[in-house]
Amino acid sequence: MEKPGIVITGASGRMGQMLVRTVMESDQARLVGAIERQVSPWIGRDLGEAMGGAAIGVTVTDDPIEAIAKAQAVIDFTSPAATVGFAELAAQARAVHVIGTTGLEPEHLAKIKAAARHAPIVRAGNMSLGVNLLVGLTRKVAAALGDDWDVEVVEAHHNRKVDAPSGTALMLGEAAAEGRGHSLDDLRTPAREGITGAREKGTIGFSAIRGGDIVGEHDVMFASAGERLILRHVATDRAIFARGALRAALWGQDKGPGEYDMADVLGL
Amino acid sequence: MEKPGIVITGASGRMGQMLVRTVMESDQARLVGAIERQVSPWIGRDLGEAMGGAAIGVTVTDDPIEAIAKAQAVIDFTSPAATVGFAELAAQARAVHVIGTTGLEPEHLAKIKAAARHAPIVRAGNMSLGVNLLVGLTRKVAAALGDDWDVEVVEAHHNRKVDAPSGTALMLGEAAAEGRGHSLDDLRTPAREGITGAREKGTIGFSAIRGGDIVGEHDVMFASAGERLILRHVATDRAIFARGALRAALWGQDKGPGEYDMADVLGL
Amino acid sequence: MEKPGIVITGASGRMGQMLVRTVMESDQARLVGAIERQVSPWIGRDLGEAMGGAAIGVTVTDDPIEAIAKAQAVIDFTSPAATVGFAELAAQARAVHVIGTTGLEPEHLAKIKAAARHAPIVRAGNMSLGVNLLVGLTRKVAAALGDDWDVEVVEAHHNRKVDAPSGTALMLGEAAAEGRGHSLDDLRTPAREGITGAREKGTIGFSAIRGGDIVGEHDVMFASAGERLILRHVATDRAIFARGALRAALWGQDKGPGEYDMADVLGL
Amino acid sequence: MEKPGIVITGASGRMGQMLVRTVMESDQARLVGAIERQVSPWIGRDLGEAMGGAAIGVTVTDDPIEAIAKAQAVIDFTSPAATVGFAELAAQARAVHVIGTTGLEPEHLAKIKAAARHAPIVRAGNMSLGVNLLVGLTRKVAAALGDDWDVEVVEAHHNRKVDAPSGTALMLGEAAAEGRGHSLDDLRTPAREGITGAREKGTIGFSAIRGGDIVGEHDVMFASAGERLILRHVATDRAIFARGALRAALWGQDKGPGEYDMADVLGL
Repeated sequence: MEKPGIVITGASGRMGQMLVRTVMESDQARLVGAIERQVSPWIGRDLGEAMGGAAIGVTVTDDPIEAIAKAQAVIDFTSPAATVGFAELAAQARAVHVIGTTGLEPEHLAKIKAAARHAPIVRAGNMSLGVNLLVGLTRKVAAALGDDWDVEVVEAHHNRKVDAPSGTALMLGEAAAEGRGHSLDDLRTPAREGITGAREKGTIGFSAIRGGDIVGEHDVMFASAGERLILRHVATDRAIFARGALRAALWGQDKGPGEYDMADVLGL
Repeated sequence: MEKPGIVITGASGRMGQMLVRTVMESDQARLVGAIERQVSPWIGRDLGEAMGGAAIGVTVTDDPIEAIAKAQAVIDFTSPAATVGFAELAAQARAVHVIGTTGLEPEHLAKIKAAARHAPIVRAGNMSLGVNLLVGLTRKVAAALGDDWDVEVVEAHHNRKVDAPSGTALMLGEAAAEGRGHSLDDLRTPAREGITGAREKGTIGFSAIRGGDIVGEHDVMFASAGERLILRHVATDRAIFARGALRAALWGQDKGPGEYDMADVLGL
Repeated sequence: MEKPGIVITGASGRMGQMLVRTVMESDQARLVGAIERQVSPWIGRDLGEAMGGAAIGVTVTDDPIEAIAKAQAVIDFTSPAATVGFAELAAQARAVHVIGTTGLEPEHLAKIKAAARHAPIVRAGNMSLGVNLLVGLTRKVAAALGDDWDVEVVEAHHNRKVDAPSGTALMLGEAAAEGRGHSLDDLRTPAREGITGAREKGTIGFSAIRGGDIVGEHDVMFASAGERLILRHVATDRAIFARGALRAALWGQDKGPGEYDMADVLGL
Repeated sequence: MEKPGIVITGASGRMGQMLVRTVMESDQARLVGAIERQVSPWIGRDLGEAMGGAAIGVTVTDDPIEAIAKAQAVIDFTSPAATVGFAELAAQARAVHVIGTTGLEPEHLAKIKAAARHAPIVRAGNMSLGVNLLVGLTRKVAAALGDDWDVEVVEAHHNRKVDAPSGTALMLGEAAAEGRGHSLDDLRTPAREGITGAREKGTIGFSAIRGGDIVGEHDVMFASAGERLILRHVATDRAIFARGALRAALWGQDKGPGEYDMADVLGL
């Protein structure tokens, strides 16, 4: 069987280049296309050369229709508006669409849901194996421990990150809330500053640390009288997200239409 | 129903006094006896006064037969030889025997097993809820992650601790090994010093940090390319071990003869 | 020379009892008085008995004038209003006044300054040796590293703490700001929540974690591209604050009137 | 003034390529030569192309004499034997020799000392700013704290590292020992395993954790009763070592002959 052909969107960005490199180094997939916005200086150039290396025979294009038509999977870490468009094209091509884009609003999610009626879509806020395992552990531990164990989620990221807490931190908070039979909206406590009063039992707190080029660190702390249990994930290389995305693209090759997440891909 | 009557062995020691205080503060149990060795200056004194407080009407005794005869449970963090004797007396009294004693050899375990034919015995190397939960998580994560995730157990304890790694660290290492279908003996790697060569795949490493009055900290690290998952327990108050022991004593009140551990008690 | 006589204010509180115990265990000081508010049920009782132990011959009083008149030092972790009154009385008695009270406003500080014209006053937001050393290190490291090293202060405390960030965290932030030739007011960034934008260069961020009975943990992180330096203090026993306060009371015995802090006491 | 011309030795290795990239991205230095062993397939090729990019006009050579003759600095992370040879050539060329090579024995150090009579040599076991700052802090804190503060050095590195503890951990231990007026040989305690007995006061312990691709983490812990101070460095990108080496090369341009270390370069 031929190796699945992969198209990368936003190929000139930091995450895009990481994805290109990951697919090129894989012996289970072929890179067949690279999409950028019309204004990108990479349009029309050979992708390998644009990345500062040897030519690889893939030309960067601003025409997603043509690129996606011949793909078996599209890996996409771009923006909500662009992602919605790619979802439709991938659905038409019956290609797996792997979505790592963040900031999706209900309107975008509705369109993605529609596209998933025609082809498999794997969507995740964080594609790393470790983080997805951590989400499951958090749900389980929150359920096992009574609410005399306070839950706090602490995350650290690089100094260019513009939102807080991180999407992954919120995903962990949601898992802890679920473990206790609630939604995060019920339990989330605002960032602490000034006279906050004593901690309210059963709530979930968040802290966001920003500095340097930290790739991503997440702690879920359960604190009780005299003891603490801390579940911690440390990412040091963005390649783990690219490898997770490629793994999702390969996993989806024999799946039917529908919406999937990394827990499905990883069999957690 | 009357509250179960508890006997504490080794009542004048640091852990003994902690147990006494925990039982006295509980509204679910009564303190009915306190045992010490014949040479202890506490023998014959009121236990409350010996601890520097008001009298409580319990006299410290060196006669375990009499003390245990009227108990519904015996909580025991003493020495292997003493524990074996208490196990026999508790069996005769059909009292729950909660054993936190460490350093038990096969000969002691055989006698405990024999005593457990007549009454419930709960035995654990670490009675904290958090650590016992951590053991279960470690087994599960080790099984979920392939052996390209290196496992390391790191523990820190006070500067008077005489052995390394801690019993709890070994228990965690054993759980990780089980999760991978091995025994710890197969996978344990010696403490690193000098020219060790590269880390051998699939092994489990241990580090023991000693300093100050650290109660007990245990990390199980799973490290792969670009990411790490760390499961961490921090104990800051020995009272958690006393509370766990009392919980075991209460839990055992309606159980039949047999050997149990904290996973049974905690329903993990 | 006779050992200095110490008076403890707020003797029935958690910190008060810790101070009482620390002075009683010391062979360098005598406990000569214990002050409580008029409404306290401890008034008129022997302090040792009120604490659940044997009598010690010190009666808890609500008359600070009489108690302080015969003291060589007053150790005081109460409230701003009460502290101002004690400062005046200690000044009259030429006794060292050790102040661990937090939340002092400019009006209180002015009165303390006035009292310090007559007797030594040692005042500190945190009396531990480790934290005071950390403050000095933070100033030095902030000065040594350029502002491409982002500074973040992260603290964790028990779930009953009502304010955030902790006074100690602000003290550390102030030290970092000083190291860079600024005041903290210029550099402090609000707690992060929602769309914050990228981290502004040169600012100092704070995170406050709350859970269980954590005594107090403070991290000062300096984060740059590819590396981080973290200075961390962990307190696990409130006794360190009591020991620091007693050390200050003893240190002040041969000092002239004036305001001092723990850096003076510790010779840092 | 013209930018200093830099020669990189061992240019095809992981560290060599990192150095090449760092010099090429700098606007304060020019890359003028790249040395490899005779057997390297890179010999005779354009360095940029050999690294998978565009040509840069520097040909990889196995003739160090010619390459170094025209350099203002040589940056060298190779082997002891090779480094000794480069030191002699750099001395003849009056070029700064920056040495990051490890495993140097007294015989090599003697030759390096001889070469340093003719040109500046900067040598360091770890070229990162953070680690070198940490060494100084460790010395200072060890001196400030009495020996009731136990010192432990904990390091973590990738699973291919063959020795333990790391050279940097030993450097930190040496600094702590110096701070207490001793040499590390007097205070170093062996890796803990089995029945070790209680921790001996004043000793310095080491722990070495190995897993995944951890670049390098070092903790120096000072632990006392009730509190701990931890100085921690985390390296996440080997580029910090390359940037430190380039900084040393530039710093050395106006220095006289002699042996220097990173504390000199960084002005610590």
